[in-house]
Amino acid sequence: MTDLPRTMRASVLRGVGDIAVEERPVPEPGPREVLVRVHAVGTCGSDTHYYEHGRIGDFVVREPLVLGHEASGVVVARGSHATRHAPGQRVSLEPGVPCSTCEQCRRGRYNLCPDVRFFATPPVDGAFCEYVALDEDFAHPVPDSLSMEAAALVEPLSVGLWACRRGHVAPGARVLVTGAGPVGLMAVQCARAFGASEVVVTDVRPHRLALAAEVGATCALDVRETPLANSGVEPDVLLECSGVGPVAADGIRRVRRAGRVVLVGMGGAEIPLPLAHVQNREIELTGTFRYANTWPTAIGLAASGRVALDRLVSHRFGLDDVAAALTLAARDETAVKAVVLPQE
Amino acid sequence: MTDLPRTMRASVLRGVGDIAVEERPVPEPGPREVLVRVHAVGTCGSDTHYYEHGRIGDFVVREPLVLGHEASGVVVARGSHATRHAPGQRVSLEPGVPCSTCEQCRRGRYNLCPDVRFFATPPVDGAFCEYVALDEDFAHPVPDSLSMEAAALVEPLSVGLWACRRGHVAPGARVLVTGAGPVGLMAVQCARAFGASEVVVTDVRPHRLALAAEVGATCALDVRETPLANSGVEPDVLLECSGVGPVAADGIRRVRRAGRVVLVGMGGAEIPLPLAHVQNREIELTGTFRYANTWPTAIGLAASGRVALDRLVSHRFGLDDVAAALTLAARDETAVKAVVLPQE
Amino acid sequence: MTDLPRTMRASVLRGVGDIAVEERPVPEPGPREVLVRVHAVGTCGSDTHYYEHGRIGDFVVREPLVLGHEASGVVVARGSHATRHAPGQRVSLEPGVPCSTCEQCRRGRYNLCPDVRFFATPPVDGAFCEYVALDEDFAHPVPDSLSMEAAALVEPLSVGLWACRRGHVAPGARVLVTGAGPVGLMAVQCARAFGASEVVVTDVRPHRLALAAEVGATCALDVRETPLANSGVEPDVLLECSGVGPVAADGIRRVRRAGRVVLVGMGGAEIPLPLAHVQNREIELTGTFRYANTWPTAIGLAASGRVALDRLVSHRFGLDDVAAALTLAARDETAVKAVVLPQE
Amino acid sequence: MTDLPRTMRASVLRGVGDIAVEERPVPEPGPREVLVRVHAVGTCGSDTHYYEHGRIGDFVVREPLVLGHEASGVVVARGSHATRHAPGQRVSLEPGVPCSTCEQCRRGRYNLCPDVRFFATPPVDGAFCEYVALDEDFAHPVPDSLSMEAAALVEPLSVGLWACRRGHVAPGARVLVTGAGPVGLMAVQCARAFGASEVVVTDVRPHRLALAAEVGATCALDVRETPLANSGVEPDVLLECSGVGPVAADGIRRVRRAGRVVLVGMGGAEIPLPLAHVQNREIELTGTFRYANTWPTAIGLAASGRVALDRLVSHRFGLDDVAAALTLAARDETAVKAVVLPQE
Repeated sequence: MTDLPRTMRASVLRGVGDIAVEERPVPEPGPREVLVRVHAVGTCGSDTHYYEHGRIGDFVVREPLVLGHEASGVVVARGSHATRHAPGQRVSLEPGVPCSTCEQCRRGRYNLCPDVRFFATPPVDGAFCEYVALDEDFAHPVPDSLSMEAAALVEPLSVGLWACRRGHVAPGARVLVTGAGPVGLMAVQCARAFGASEVVVTDVRPHRLALAAEVGATCALDVRETPLANSGVEPDVLLECSGVGPVAADGIRRVRRAGRVVLVGMGGAEIPLPLAHVQNREIELTGTFRYANTWPTAIGLAASGRVALDRLVSHRFGLDDVAAALTLAARDETAVKAVVLPQE
Repeated sequence: MTDLPRTMRASVLRGVGDIAVEERPVPEPGPREVLVRVHAVGTCGSDTHYYEHGRIGDFVVREPLVLGHEASGVVVARGSHATRHAPGQRVSLEPGVPCSTCEQCRRGRYNLCPDVRFFATPPVDGAFCEYVALDEDFAHPVPDSLSMEAAALVEPLSVGLWACRRGHVAPGARVLVTGAGPVGLMAVQCARAFGASEVVVTDVRPHRLALAAEVGATCALDVRETPLANSGVEPDVLLECSGVGPVAADGIRRVRRAGRVVLVGMGGAEIPLPLAHVQNREIELTGTFRYANTWPTAIGLAASGRVALDRLVSHRFGLDDVAAALTLAARDETAVKAVVLPQE
Repeated sequence: MTDLPRTMRASVLRGVGDIAVEERPVPEPGPREVLVRVHAVGTCGSDTHYYEHGRIGDFVVREPLVLGHEASGVVVARGSHATRHAPGQRVSLEPGVPCSTCEQCRRGRYNLCPDVRFFATPPVDGAFCEYVALDEDFAHPVPDSLSMEAAALVEPLSVGLWACRRGHVAPGARVLVTGAGPVGLMAVQCARAFGASEVVVTDVRPHRLALAAEVGATCALDVRETPLANSGVEPDVLLECSGVGPVAADGIRRVRRAGRVVLVGMGGAEIPLPLAHVQNREIELTGTFRYANTWPTAIGLAASGRVALDRLVSHRFGLDDVAAALTLAARDETAVKAVVLPQE
Repeated sequence: MTDLPRTMRASVLRGVGDIAVEERPVPEPGPREVLVRVHAVGTCGSDTHYYEHGRIGDFVVREPLVLGHEASGVVVARGSHATRHAPGQRVSLEPGVPCSTCEQCRRGRYNLCPDVRFFATPPVDGAFCEYVALDEDFAHPVPDSLSMEAAALVEPLSVGLWACRRGHVAPGARVLVTGAGPVGLMAVQCARAFGASEVVVTDVRPHRLALAAEVGATCALDVRETPLANSGVEPDVLLECSGVGPVAADGIRRVRRAGRVVLVGMGGAEIPLPLAHVQNREIELTGTFRYANTWPTAIGLAASGRVALDRLVSHRFGLDDVAAALTLAARDETAVKAVVLPQE
């Protein structure tokens, strides 16, 4: 690590609405960790929520916190027992490292590990900074054909991929995606990559609907003009990406017999579940929490061109402008995905 | 069919609260049907609901209707192409005959067939009568060790069995059954037969709780004394058999990570689904609608003594007293399952 | 049916190596059947086998038999209760009609129905003729964008689709297809449509390997030059389409831990299964027998252009030349799929 | 660890047929390990095979090796970061500790981890000694109702449990178990605990067959008297526990359509797989390699009395007599399971 600096610039959330660049020590990688120079970090609604409210549910920011969990970079150093990656390796970072020994980890559902350490979730720092250290097994190599920004967006792509897996999307499936935000756009593309024959997406923002159609939706429906109930849409699988209770309930009512519902979008406390509909059609419903075992597949989909990641990057910011990046969506409705570039 | 009478006695629902025995023609079995002399018919909450309200949801009683769909009897005649059962064969009747060619039928989910003809569901007559005709494939042979009453209760047993299948109950599972009515009591017994190591049942009726413990629940919890939230119960699988929204919601909140919820009980229009809980734990939730492919297994469980059916019969009635049978539960809280015996 | 002829031309197998066109009555559709004017019929190795040997295993040709089971055409008449298709509807024919009531049918595995009636399998006639009658539910509408030849090849496409389903091919999977005959070529294309990231195909015929690469294989391997054992190929899923025992055994030895093997190709009596390899890696192996519930998905894949069907048609014959069609592969190694056109 | 001795007695395999007790240091538990005083260790065919041949396949005994991997005991000390068990805790030992980070571990199939460290598999020492150190997560607490011998036999019980899981044994299933050795006897009991309605077991040793019937087989068949082919047995699931190729092939030929085969027994290099049978019936076949996520369920089954473990212990030996224990089966055909008791 001789050529590495001792300190780095990090964007630190110090309180509600108070974020600033500070000088911090470059982290020391643990024995099985790699040190990664961070090149691109996507911004996510959860980052914005921490910035504006200082908490998400039970997770409260009590100490200064570095946000950002959609990251890519280059391996620059390794811990004493880390052997998987050579320095110089370009990597996409899977931001949650589970305990690997609890019941959920042992059963392959490591995203449900109660002791997972996840970037930008108090008290674990994230990636809006110049360097991060991470377990080498969670730094996934990416081919040169993938840009650093695309490598960062493998994280939200994993969200869409996991939704499709949990939804059992299969060739020939008819899929409804409610909500064409970044997650919805990923879900649309993954559903197509899984072989869905129809992918209807709904939203009320024309810009987003146009983009959804561009990246693969077979039908982009403005529900202010055509309410879902009148649309004739009857999906096998609903991927709910809006996080809005009534939208979810409307979508559920459209699902076919033996269909599946995946609640991806986060929002209100409760969804009014139409009981008779769920019973009479034996609909299966579940929610997603992050993802497990998605990176290799997601990187493969991105590298093969089956999903478009760079196309979703609408704005770029430096470390000094993280606050602007986090509040962009409220100011600019053409925003899709803002990316922070810590090396620029 | 030389020795068979031309007419028979049938208990006919003629309007809300108006049920009476009428003389009707003995049905002619179709080419692939058998004619069955009915020996025992369980009463179900849906029968009572039709009797008291004249409808269940979109199913409205517009013509006189024979109720009863939990039936057993003896084959007494066969249609021209029916070869499966010899006359004299004792059978348990699966009361729904699907179209067998639609998408759901072809995929093995024949309970979801939109064209199913189901006993005691308008406009299809049921089994509170002396003889019924049924597709021979839906008349399932029972061994002599099974009483005719037990053979009738294979129908509600199938409801519990299907709940356990849909809930993926497996050896070692911890199961919570909310509601110890007849369906809950079947679910308890099936969960044990599926190898569940813990089966907690909740209710507010001590008589039902005692019976649940007797037939296999490892813990019978009176939630007036110990609210579920304070019970420490954390099931892998929730089999919701109460049909009460807040009970369902309370139960869902107890379910472990990656657990399953099966909504069996019917009731209110909507259940308030706790979104974050379902997402953070990736709980899978579904409802049941009747059952598919359960009879052979259910008969096997009953014949082997793994589930107790006769024990659940608390009262018996003749055809003339169907009204009394259908209103029993409201009058007598020790009632569990009332059975109508058309031949007595 | 006023405008229909009373008789038709049919290519009849009268004994080993003895096939000739005969005049036969146009079939009467049963109550729930449609009458279809046949436009295209693919030839299959099983047709050739019946022609050359008079039997396949226990199926022996004892009476004159019409061969051909990969068929498409146009609905020209309907039975008294057939309502699904209007005359003029272009259809692809699913050639096996199951009993729909046995245990396998009820469980959704209707391809395993012991009483299935399957085209060109003694004693059921096939489609090398001008008209066939078929259960309306097994005549599947095709869009105008699909040629009649492509509609006929939905049958072998279904074989590849079913192989991928049974192999659990999923996005990101690495798939090995052994054998690049018509079935292998379908398997390659389906694996890609299912999202496989790598599809390696092996054969010893350069023409077939070139075609496999053209339709989507990521690697086409001539195993005379590079034996599989030296290739470095380690698939998640093996789709064995050669029917050659040692090829199957070689392929199985390459499969990764927890991988799957699907034996599609038919051939010798026994495959030497490497026990320790199957155990140490917990490989799951199965065979396929025809297909179930594939037509709608297969038609969707063909209509969307994800699989190329017309490209596989290498030769065309009239009804008078069925014998030449069935012996083509032995004479011409550039042959891929020969199609019989009964209307020309 | 003040009261613990510095050295202990260990039974060491020094060469083929050469085993002797040596004095060895008591192991130091690693940071997340517990030190366990060993009370009971079952003997297994693999121990005997190492003793007699010095190798199993690619695993060669090159250095002195302690055998024994079916062990139970009491926690007597803990590493610096081990917090799960208090000293005095009675435990059953899961003998393989995987890397927990490879692809298989992350997917929940940790038994397929290529870097697992497994007791009594070169170069990892086993449990025929007074003390062993093991990762605390792989020392599973057992209730007082379980004897130390039963706690040791949770290991072979796990083999049977895993076979039933991989075989999808479910309530109502008809199961065939070929071979009534210790593994077969475990498989029989697990199949019953999973709700199988029929469990037929085959063997040629009357003593074993009698024991199988005693512990739950519904039919114990001496195949010297009644060859399987004449038995009328047609299972949904075959659990092959003999390891004999022709027995496996005979069993496979009996399996029903859509049935499953699990190859548990180890033996010859190849099994002649009847291709047409596997294809025409779409049988699914797999092998088992140890087990994953079985201990809690297995302990629950043993504690509830659903499986009998103590009943299988036929002989007991001290550490000085391990050679006699390992060669018992060859001398005494009434032997079932010999247990070594290192503290006596």
